[in-house]
Order: sequence, then C-alpha cells, then structure tokens
Amino acid sequence: MTDHPSRAGASPFRQLSRRSVLAGATASAVVPVTAMNGVPAAAAPAKRGDTRRITMYAEELPNGLIGYGTSPGEATVPGPVLEMWEGDTLEIELVNNTDRKLSIHPHGVDYDVDSDGTPLNASVNEPGQRRTYVWHSHGPYKAKGNRWMPGSAGYWHYHDHAMGTPHGTEGINKGLYGALIVRRKGDVLPDRRFTVVFNGMTINNRTAPDAPLFRARLGERVEFVAIGQGDLFHTFHMHAHRWTDNRTGMLEGPHDTSPSIDNKDLNPGSSFGFQVIAGDGVGPGAWMYHCHVQFHSDQGMAGIFLVLNEDGSVPEGAQAALDRYRDQG
Amino acid sequence: MTDHPSRAGASPFRQLSRRSVLAGATASAVVPVTAMNGVPAAAAPAKRGDTRRITMYAEELPNGLIGYGTSPGEATVPGPVLEMWEGDTLEIELVNNTDRKLSIHPHGVDYDVDSDGTPLNASVNEPGQRRTYVWHSHGPYKAKGNRWMPGSAGYWHYHDHAMGTPHGTEGINKGLYGALIVRRKGDVLPDRRFTVVFNGMTINNRTAPDAPLFRARLGERVEFVAIGQGDLFHTFHMHAHRWTDNRTGMLEGPHDTSPSIDNKDLNPGSSFGFQVIAGDGVGPGAWMYHCHVQFHSDQGMAGIFLVLNEDGSVPEGAQAALDRYRDQG
Amino acid sequence: MTDHPSRAGASPFRQLSRRSVLAGATASAVVPVTAMNGVPAAAAPAKRGDTRRITMYAEELPNGLIGYGTSPGEATVPGPVLEMWEGDTLEIELVNNTDRKLSIHPHGVDYDVDSDGTPLNASVNEPGQRRTYVWHSHGPYKAKGNRWMPGSAGYWHYHDHAMGTPHGTEGINKGLYGALIVRRKGDVLPDRRFTVVFNGMTINNRTAPDAPLFRARLGERVEFVAIGQGDLFHTFHMHAHRWTDNRTGMLEGPHDTSPSIDNKDLNPGSSFGFQVIAGDGVGPGAWMYHCHVQFHSDQGMAGIFLVLNEDGSVPEGAQAALDRYRDQG
Repeated sequence: MTDHPSRAGASPFRQLSRRSVLAGATASAVVPVTAMNGVPAAAAPAKRGDTRRITMYAEELPNGLIGYGTSPGEATVPGPVLEMWEGDTLEIELVNNTDRKLSIHPHGVDYDVDSDGTPLNASVNEPGQRRTYVWHSHGPYKAKGNRWMPGSAGYWHYHDHAMGTPHGTEGINKGLYGALIVRRKGDVLPDRRFTVVFNGMTINNRTAPDAPLFRARLGERVEFVAIGQGDLFHTFHMHAHRWTDNRTGMLEGPHDTSPSIDNKDLNPGSSFGFQVIAGDGVGPGAWMYHCHVQFHSDQGMAGIFLVLNEDGSVPEGAQAALDRYRDQG
Repeated sequence: MTDHPSRAGASPFRQLSRRSVLAGATASAVVPVTAMNGVPAAAAPAKRGDTRRITMYAEELPNGLIGYGTSPGEATVPGPVLEMWEGDTLEIELVNNTDRKLSIHPHGVDYDVDSDGTPLNASVNEPGQRRTYVWHSHGPYKAKGNRWMPGSAGYWHYHDHAMGTPHGTEGINKGLYGALIVRRKGDVLPDRRFTVVFNGMTINNRTAPDAPLFRARLGERVEFVAIGQGDLFHTFHMHAHRWTDNRTGMLEGPHDTSPSIDNKDLNPGSSFGFQVIAGDGVGPGAWMYHCHVQFHSDQGMAGIFLVLNEDGSVPEGAQAALDRYRDQG
Repeated sequence: MTDHPSRAGASPFRQLSRRSVLAGATASAVVPVTAMNGVPAAAAPAKRGDTRRITMYAEELPNGLIGYGTSPGEATVPGPVLEMWEGDTLEIELVNNTDRKLSIHPHGVDYDVDSDGTPLNASVNEPGQRRTYVWHSHGPYKAKGNRWMPGSAGYWHYHDHAMGTPHGTEGINKGLYGALIVRRKGDVLPDRRFTVVFNGMTINNRTAPDAPLFRARLGERVEFVAIGQGDLFHTFHMHAHRWTDNRTGMLEGPHDTSPSIDNKDLNPGSSFGFQVIAGDGVGPGAWMYHCHVQFHSDQGMAGIFLVLNEDGSVPEGAQAALDRYRDQG
C-alpha cells in the first residue's frame, strides 16, 4: 500500500477503510512496516565523505503531474528523499523524459554555476537531455576573519528551476520537488521519514480527503521534512506533537533556550525538519496535521498522522476518525 | 476600568480622555494598579506537578462575538490566560452555553484523542453540553535515541476547533481564543501580562481607535503574549521596546547569540511571548504597537502601550497622543 | 559606476554588458574596488560609546521616488547605511526638503517619544522643517528580576512613519527607508555591505532587469542586510550561499545548533543580516538572489550577486548570464 506519493488517484483512506471493514480488528489490519515509509530514499547515508552517483528521471505522471524518480517509470510527487552526510558529494545525472525544459536546483548545498539548475546559468536539461549536476557538502569551518561558518547540515529541498518561467514555476506547480537532508556526524536516524510539501493550496499536490496519510507505530522515531513551494503563505501545525525550533528539532540539553513549537511558517522556498516520538505522552490515534491558515485548512490542506498501536494495529476509534475525515473532505 | 477584553463597546481612549480632561494632572488621573491587568488569570501558577480543575464557559457576547470565561456571564475576547508550570495537569470542564457546536483545542501541551477538541476525534461540545478536556505538560526529557526532547514550556494558545468548519473557523472568527502559558521552573513572573491576538484584520477582534490599550508603570516587568489567528499574514511590531527571539524573550547571558527583534511574523496558529521592562531606556509615554503590514496598520491594526510614570500618573504629552490616536482612528 | 541606489534610470546590466563587449577579457573589465560598495556608509563605526551627529536630507528623486541622503542632492533609495556600536548615540538632524510631512523612525534602538518619528507623538518634520532625532544603543544588561535583557546589536532599519498615513505608507512606498546596523564589540567587519529591501513587488524600488546588481570579489567577506517593507509577504533566497539563522549569520562554534538557511521570511517591518564569503566553495559567477514566492520572482523580484574573480575580472560565462538576465527581465 503506497502512502503519499501521487501515482494512483485512489484515496488511501478509502482503501484503509475498506480493508478495515473486511478485517475488523484482526491482525490483518496491521500495516506492514516495510510499506509504511512514504517516500523511497534514493541515497541512504553511507560513510562520510563519499562521492555517490545516482540517476534521476523527470517524467510525466497521471493527472498532469510531473515528478522526479530514481528509476524509469517510478517518478513520484514529491520526489525521492535525497540524503547526504556533511562532507559527501552527490552527482546526479538527471534524465529528462519529458518534452519540456527542466532542471534540478538544490537548497543548502554547494554547487558551481554549471550545477545551478537555472536558465540564467544555462544549467538546464532540454527535452530528452541527460545532464549531470554535482552537489557538495561540508561541516562547519573557520573562514576569513576567524569565524565559524555554517555547515551544510539541514532539512533542505530541491526543485525545478526552469519549466514555464526562469524560476521553474510551472515545474514546481506540477510536482517537481523533493526533500534533501544533509546530516551531521552524530545525528540520530529516524525509524520513519515523511515529506510534507505545502505547494499552493495543496499538500504534496493533493487535498483532503486525499491528502497524505502518514503512519507510524507508537514510540517510533518519526522524521518530518516540511517544505514550502508556490505563491501562498502557510503555517504548518501538527496536533499533539511538538518540536524544538532549531537545526534538529531536539534540544541540546535541558537548558537549551530554543523555543518549543507546534506551528511554524512554511513559506515558498523555506523548509525545516524535526523528529518526534510518535504518540509520546498522548497515545495512538488519528492526529491531524494541517495548514493553520483557516481558509487553507477548510479548503483541504489537512491530513492525518496515524499513530498505530505498538503492534501495528489500528487503535480504537481511529478508523472512525479516518471515516469522518474522508466524509468531511 | 476594563482594558481590552471586549465586553463593552465603548472605547477606553474616550474614557481616559474624558477623565483626564476633568482631572488634569492631579492624582485622580492615576490608573489603579488592580485595574491595569487586561485579562484575568484563570489559573495562577501553584506548586509544580499540580492537577487543577477549572470550569470554562463558552458564551455569546454583544456584537455577535463569542468568548470563553471562567465564570458564567464573564466570558471575554480573548479568553482568560491559562497558566501551568511544566509538570502540571489542567482539567477543563467546558460548558457550552451557546446553541452551536464548539470545543477547546490547545497548542503545546499533551492530550489524548478524547481531548483533541476536533470533530475528527468526536471531541467537541454539542450545544448545551458539558465536556472535560485534560491537558498535561512536562519538562525536557530524554527519549529513544538518547536525545533531549522539548518540554512544554512556551507561550501557547487555545481556540475553538469545531464551530462552522472542522477547523473552528467561525468560532475563532467570533472570538473563541485565548493565551496558554506553560512556565519552566525558574522562569521569572511578570508584574503585568497582556494578550495580543492578530485575528483577521483585528486585534482581539477590535480595531483602532478601539484596539486594546495596555497600561503599565515605568519599570514594571510586562509580559506580552502574541497570537495569530484567521486567514491573513501579519507582523507584530512594538515601538521603543525589543526582545530576544527565543523561548523567554530574554538572553541566557551576555554571550547568547539569539537575535534582538522588535518585529516578528505572527501568522495563523503561531504564538510567542516576551517580557520587557516598561519604558526602560526610553521613558514613559504612549508607545504604538501595530501590525507592520502597512495596509493592516492603516486599516486599524494599531494600539497603544501606555507606559505611565512610576507613580501611575499619565506622563506629559501622553494624553495628547491618545487623543490623536482616537481622532486618527 | 553606481550600483543599486536608484538615482539614474539606466540599467547597470546594460552598462556592464556594453563595456564588456568593448573590453573583452582585458583588465579594463575590472570593477574598481572603490566603486563596488552599493550604498555609502553615513556613519562608519568609531570608538564605542561615541555620540555622533549627522545631518540627513529627505529629497525627491526622479521617477517620483523620495530618498534619504547625508548631503543635499545625494539622496538614494535605499538611504545610507547607518552604523553604530552598542553604546553609541546617534543624533540625526533631518532636513525635510520636500513639501510633504515626513519623519525617520528606527527599529531596534532606544529613543524617547520626541524621537519616535510618528504623528502620534507629534514627532515629525513638517515641509521644509529641520528636526533632530536621537537614537541610543546599549549592550546586554541585567534588569529587574536579575535577567539578561537583549542588547541593541542587530541588523535593523529605519523608515518614514508620517507621509500619507500615520504609518508612513506613502513615504515607504516611495523609498524612504534604509539599513541601520548596530554592532557588538568583537563583531567582524565585512569587506562589502549591501542593502536589499523587499518593498511591495520591488527590490529597493526596482525590478528585473533593473534590480540591484551586487558585486564582490571571490573570497571577500560580504554583508547583506535584508529588510521587508510594504504590504506583501516575501521570502529572501540566495543561490549557492547560506548563513546561520542567528544574530550574526555565523556560528558561535562547531556545536552551535542554530539552523543553516538560504531562504528566510522577509515580511514588512522585519530585517536580518548575515555575512558570506563570496563564492566560497562554489566559485565565482552570476548568482541569483530573489524572492522565492514564484509569482514575485516571475514578476521581477530577482537580481544578481556577481562574484568576480579574485583579481576583479568578470568570470567566464558571467557576462552571458547577465545578458540572459537582462533579456528575460
């Protein structure tokens, strides 16, 4: 069962509902762990300082969407999560299987003008063209003036910067975006990882009742990467879970003065990430995440973070909540 | 004299102006300290780890507003400030004295699905119904992966999540919101505390010249809790006072690298708080606070933070400023 | 060659292009260092604790703009960068050479009601009037309650608060704004310093292909002060460069948990600053900076940060990029 990558038009809620009607509360309602992770990781972290080479494919999808994928015919919206450790280099050969000009432009990492992904620097894929983009990363370092400059670690994103306008407005609108995570030595890896893109009036180019359904088991460490795209301003809110407003979403220690938040601006080009312990202190259930701009949530920018029981079964009441969500939408 | 809770339609500026014309610069212009605090505190901090139970009432107010209160007939917009220490539990029995479905949904604290305050989780008050919501809080703690997770301390808020739409858009629009403060052991308590909610094109559902007038004496420690609601983006600006952009609004010490700011995004669902020393380094007077979006301030999203002399008298020139404010509005 | 202050209507890109066509890759394409700095510094940092007095002139410019300057006939949009060290006092005699009411209102620093710059406090310049505004600054200090209160250090701004409306909407719209930097002892000074104001749908009241062109040599320490004004929400993005989201834009050390960012909300009344090493790790070239709201960048809120070779020559390919920029715009 695929979660949020938009390949099929069917609502995951309808599927879950149907199966659960069949299965009742039996073990068959358990969601297999291997199917829980919404977006495939194209480049799992390896040793630090690696140079890795991957191939990505930009392709048309049903419903007029266009996505990135790591194999032909496997493009998704959002595209695959790309991961690096500080110090890594990632070489991406982008294959443009569409008849439109497009590119891939990253935030946060280092690249020279040939990998800028902009028409400005003639760094784009013509229709059918293959082109390699090289992204470097680095840790904090001392620069001129004896000051510590920021490292590359962060919850970033990548997107088209060429289709339709010199800023890739049409490509982004159609789904050419994805998460880019650069980790620092010592960062803790999550059990699950989800990408949430507020793009125009959509979440990952979908709206309620078909907005992404994210599932994890009670107690799992879950990482969210939140990304803003498009023309509108948004705020990302998650029910019953909160995080620290810093690089990792966690405190350095008990005296860290970074604020705890559960609502954060998520405007075009910005991104942030955090890890929560699913259902910690609040229990399992169907927890809403949504844009907190009232008009936007009312218009469909709301989805469910479903915290399953520890054994993976659907908690009592959660199926009824999912049914309500589907009917409200 | 009540300040900003919207029960009466009369402008506080008109009242102050009239009285001051009568009183001149005599002692009768002194504003009684007991009347200065804008919003009653429903639950003053007690020992840490307490479980407290309060009753709140949702009621219709004049002008089509709806507010929360802690006694029947005492609802205000914004609702009462709710305060907890990290570790406290707050049990709120909400009495719905309206003929509309509504709820109370908090930010920042822990609650299970039955206290979510959403139609999604069937956690709402039907008309006339009493229903109990339970909110827990906790300090920073180490979780799975040996990482420090954020505590509950913060300047949060609560609001309806059920009236009109599944997101409570109508309830929020009419005034069903208030501040929720969770304090950490060692946090300093203010002398005064004010709630500023940018809700649509209003401040606490009011606009100039009837926007909230906040009063404090020179040198008092004043706490502002700023909350965003509705559909619009805003920035909160205060004249002649500034704060640190972290959890408390103050520095940890002289080497803290958190920025000083006097203008901050205040978008729907977000909130922050800070403490200033009234008039410190700038003197008493009528200091404007306003949304810095030009169109919004011009349309009435501007009010006055009146810093009185140390003895509580109105400083020279301040009455003229208040008169100008009233006339501009 | 003047960069971004809007006095002349001609595009700097056209000029650069023409010269470069004439000069080819010869030494004459070198941009003189003395001409690189976009905005003159009106008040260079001196010893700490100084009181300095400057005269500023508000004047009409071609194209209906109005600017501040430090000499008659020298007004620019944005106005001159004003710099202080924490502890300094700045006395500004503002000469209003227009026939409109106007003022100067600062963010971040201390001033009494007479220097508020608002009609509310009758602190404005009538047409033709001279008026002195006094701004104080201070370092972090312990206040009542034994807490550290924020110092004045920061990347702030100043603007009109009187023309057209009590909030100076017309003055700001026409260009009455500029950067105000307060530095802390030990802060590192940049080699170059640029002001970027997102004001309505413009950058410094200009749009592509005439948006500001910022130039620095590879390896130079470059400071950007980003300021938001007007009615719209924006996000500021810079290609191939990133900074730390704290007071200085740099890390305190390798374990600082402040996030690295390359895209930040830049809404009305807000400002921030940071320093980058031009082209560090990415090389010289024409790097775009722009509002990341797609509609805004497409409509012209995009400019170029031109990183020259170390010897000041235009890097290979950069002229072609500038030509494309000019043609796209």
